[in-house]
Amino acid sequence: MKFEQAVSVQWIADFIGAKLVGDAEQMATGINEIHKVQKGDISFVDFEKYYNKCLHSAATVIIINKEVECPAGKTLLVTADPFSAYVKIVKRFRPFEPANKMISDTAEIGEGTHLQPNVFVGNHVKIGKNCLIHPNVTIYDHTIIGDNVIIHAGTVLGADAFYFKRRKEREVQYDKMVSCGRVIIESDVEIGAGCTIDKGVSGDTIIGQGTKLDNHIHIGHGAVIGKNCLFAAQVGIGGKAIIEDEVILWGQVGVSKDLVIGKGAIVYAQSGVPSSIEGGKVYFGSPVEEARTKMKELNWIKRIPELWEKITKND
Amino acid sequence: MKFEQAVSVQWIADFIGAKLVGDAEQMATGINEIHKVQKGDISFVDFEKYYNKCLHSAATVIIINKEVECPAGKTLLVTADPFSAYVKIVKRFRPFEPANKMISDTAEIGEGTHLQPNVFVGNHVKIGKNCLIHPNVTIYDHTIIGDNVIIHAGTVLGADAFYFKRRKEREVQYDKMVSCGRVIIESDVEIGAGCTIDKGVSGDTIIGQGTKLDNHIHIGHGAVIGKNCLFAAQVGIGGKAIIEDEVILWGQVGVSKDLVIGKGAIVYAQSGVPSSIEGGKVYFGSPVEEARTKMKELNWIKRIPELWEKITKND
Amino acid sequence: MKFEQAVSVQWIADFIGAKLVGDAEQMATGINEIHKVQKGDISFVDFEKYYNKCLHSAATVIIINKEVECPAGKTLLVTADPFSAYVKIVKRFRPFEPANKMISDTAEIGEGTHLQPNVFVGNHVKIGKNCLIHPNVTIYDHTIIGDNVIIHAGTVLGADAFYFKRRKEREVQYDKMVSCGRVIIESDVEIGAGCTIDKGVSGDTIIGQGTKLDNHIHIGHGAVIGKNCLFAAQVGIGGKAIIEDEVILWGQVGVSKDLVIGKGAIVYAQSGVPSSIEGGKVYFGSPVEEARTKMKELNWIKRIPELWEKITKND
Repeated sequence: MKFEQAVSVQWIADFIGAKLVGDAEQMATGINEIHKVQKGDISFVDFEKYYNKCLHSAATVIIINKEVECPAGKTLLVTADPFSAYVKIVKRFRPFEPANKMISDTAEIGEGTHLQPNVFVGNHVKIGKNCLIHPNVTIYDHTIIGDNVIIHAGTVLGADAFYFKRRKEREVQYDKMVSCGRVIIESDVEIGAGCTIDKGVSGDTIIGQGTKLDNHIHIGHGAVIGKNCLFAAQVGIGGKAIIEDEVILWGQVGVSKDLVIGKGAIVYAQSGVPSSIEGGKVYFGSPVEEARTKMKELNWIKRIPELWEKITKND
Repeated sequence: MKFEQAVSVQWIADFIGAKLVGDAEQMATGINEIHKVQKGDISFVDFEKYYNKCLHSAATVIIINKEVECPAGKTLLVTADPFSAYVKIVKRFRPFEPANKMISDTAEIGEGTHLQPNVFVGNHVKIGKNCLIHPNVTIYDHTIIGDNVIIHAGTVLGADAFYFKRRKEREVQYDKMVSCGRVIIESDVEIGAGCTIDKGVSGDTIIGQGTKLDNHIHIGHGAVIGKNCLFAAQVGIGGKAIIEDEVILWGQVGVSKDLVIGKGAIVYAQSGVPSSIEGGKVYFGSPVEEARTKMKELNWIKRIPELWEKITKND
Repeated sequence: MKFEQAVSVQWIADFIGAKLVGDAEQMATGINEIHKVQKGDISFVDFEKYYNKCLHSAATVIIINKEVECPAGKTLLVTADPFSAYVKIVKRFRPFEPANKMISDTAEIGEGTHLQPNVFVGNHVKIGKNCLIHPNVTIYDHTIIGDNVIIHAGTVLGADAFYFKRRKEREVQYDKMVSCGRVIIESDVEIGAGCTIDKGVSGDTIIGQGTKLDNHIHIGHGAVIGKNCLFAAQVGIGGKAIIEDEVILWGQVGVSKDLVIGKGAIVYAQSGVPSSIEGGKVYFGSPVEEARTKMKELNWIKRIPELWEKITKND
């Protein structure tokens, strides 16, 4: 997320009660998780093993739980609990804005777009032209929707990322990461009934142009779905997964987080994708393999009794 | 779908800009996909390998992308893009009717039926007697519901079929098939919370009398579910599947499209049914096998190390 | 369920048309299924093989379909169809109360709690302090929610248990068990979008303090989920399952009914849990095994061709 206007690092240091180390004069222009961070951004790190990655990322301001040497041109904000400090900043610059009507006054809705009854459209939402939104759809704040988009009933766009930090020593163990990312639905997308597409933690969850989703599909926070993909019903996609263009996922496929499915891959029903797979191939199984490999395996399993017989005959 | 009144084939030819071949005098009484087509209907075909099937189907009017010999008593409408012509006709005779209130004035609701707050009831919907519809349910236009039906919160009846024609040469590759079928819920059915039952493309999706669906169930376009079936939560049924009476599907079962599950079959949890299976048996696995066969296989897999030991001992 | 005030067993006998055997003077204080029954409760039994279990349970009043010897201090109510008699009592003491507004006048909503537009809050619902309920959520009657709870859009709390008695001889075969249990969401819980948590049949479905549920999760009737659990998207939990504290279930995991998952167990994505598993371990597969056992099996399957080669070489 980018701030509406730049904020001085000294103000941030005071706001979160951190010790400022390094350049005290610069301005922060946004806040992002480490994998989304850009120049000008605040990010955070609280595990020593990730210190180097964060200190040498594009981040300009780093909230950190130990005073280390500050790289040139950066600012460290040293505090005992960087996660909580980060969340405090997110909440300050993207506060929850309670709604009291179904369609926010700050929403922009394009010409030719029709909303069926009882669609919730949150604050700062933008919907393009010639869209059709069916009843009982919920569109959280800051969602952006292109032109010619169809969204079926009961679908939810922009719910919070499922992202928590565990504090095993506490009675209530999970601290919530507050999301400030958005959902972006590009033009010519159709989304079935009862789907859920979560917002990114700090970046955007994107559904690429011309992609079609069947019913009951879950898209995790920050996932980026390419153009002209086809996902059948009850598919689930983990957070930050990247699905390239023209991927076809059949029903009930599950895709883990933080991976890439290459362009044009086809994954058969009920498969589970635990890590990246190449494009242009056909996959099956949980965990997936290339479909023909998996089919051969299923055949080999059926031949185990034959193997047994051969062996015991030789005894 | 049947038209409210018959339409001359010449009018249709002009409307879609097609060349009329064969009988120019007859009237079209409806429009249907090839597998649902009846006498009097318009249908379409755009692959040479399906020409014969379509030309010799019950269809009276055939939209086709090549001028071929017209069977006696039929009319061909020759046009470069039969799919788009078919969709144009569907949209003309079953136009989307935007709603501006939660319960349409054209809906009929039977005696003793209670709608909880915020149920959307579309145009031309018929609901029988003594039903109970819980909050935030969406019932699309033309849905028909029998007597004594219970529908839990958040369920969606009648969303569009997930059916697209791919045009790989275009930037936006998928063309939407516009659905004109309906959802029919017979009497004494109970549908759980957060279910989605799609309308048929041109025919009807049917849930048979006395069938009970748990939560989060997806029923694809044109599926026909028999009487007294029991589906546990998160089951997904593909388009045009036929599930005969008294079938029991346990949780998270996935059923592919265009198949038959025979009467009284029982399918264990998380199984995947890729093609037709006989009734009266118990199944398990993805892909399914008879449960006892699958159980034996699972046992054989555990014995592979024993096999290995026997073999290497013989070495 | 406990009654608001005790009811004489004679009144109950007359109400359901049963023959009273045993103590005719005592008072019934509640009604419960056999596995939830407490002193003072009415319960029912209609299979001879369960007679002893029910007669010697904590139940004070037993609806039974055969006149048997009455244990001391108990009352039998003998009737041909105990299931229907039980349902008749439940409906009498927990009648469905039709709603005509989105937020019931009998609901109690705590300080600092914010409901986004179009949340349905049923009768006798209690919501604690500082909760945030997103749009289009449905909260059925009698649900209880603690403090600091977040519920995302489209979620449904308290739909009916999926519990039917089959009468194969009838045309409409399934008789509905009417639920009188509740859903209880403890403090500091977060529930994702499009989830469904069913009420218990006579007891309570409980989500323990600090537990976090992702989207599209189904929790069956009477399940008891511990504290600080983490369930990823599209998980399904069967009725009356007990999930102890700090259990982690990854996406699309299915859990059968009537079992226990021990404290701190971790179950990998798409696994199926058919029966109880110990805590503190990591599981995978459908049906699940310990993850390292399952991984070894998957490796052994890949070695079957090697086995085959060894054997045929020996031929």
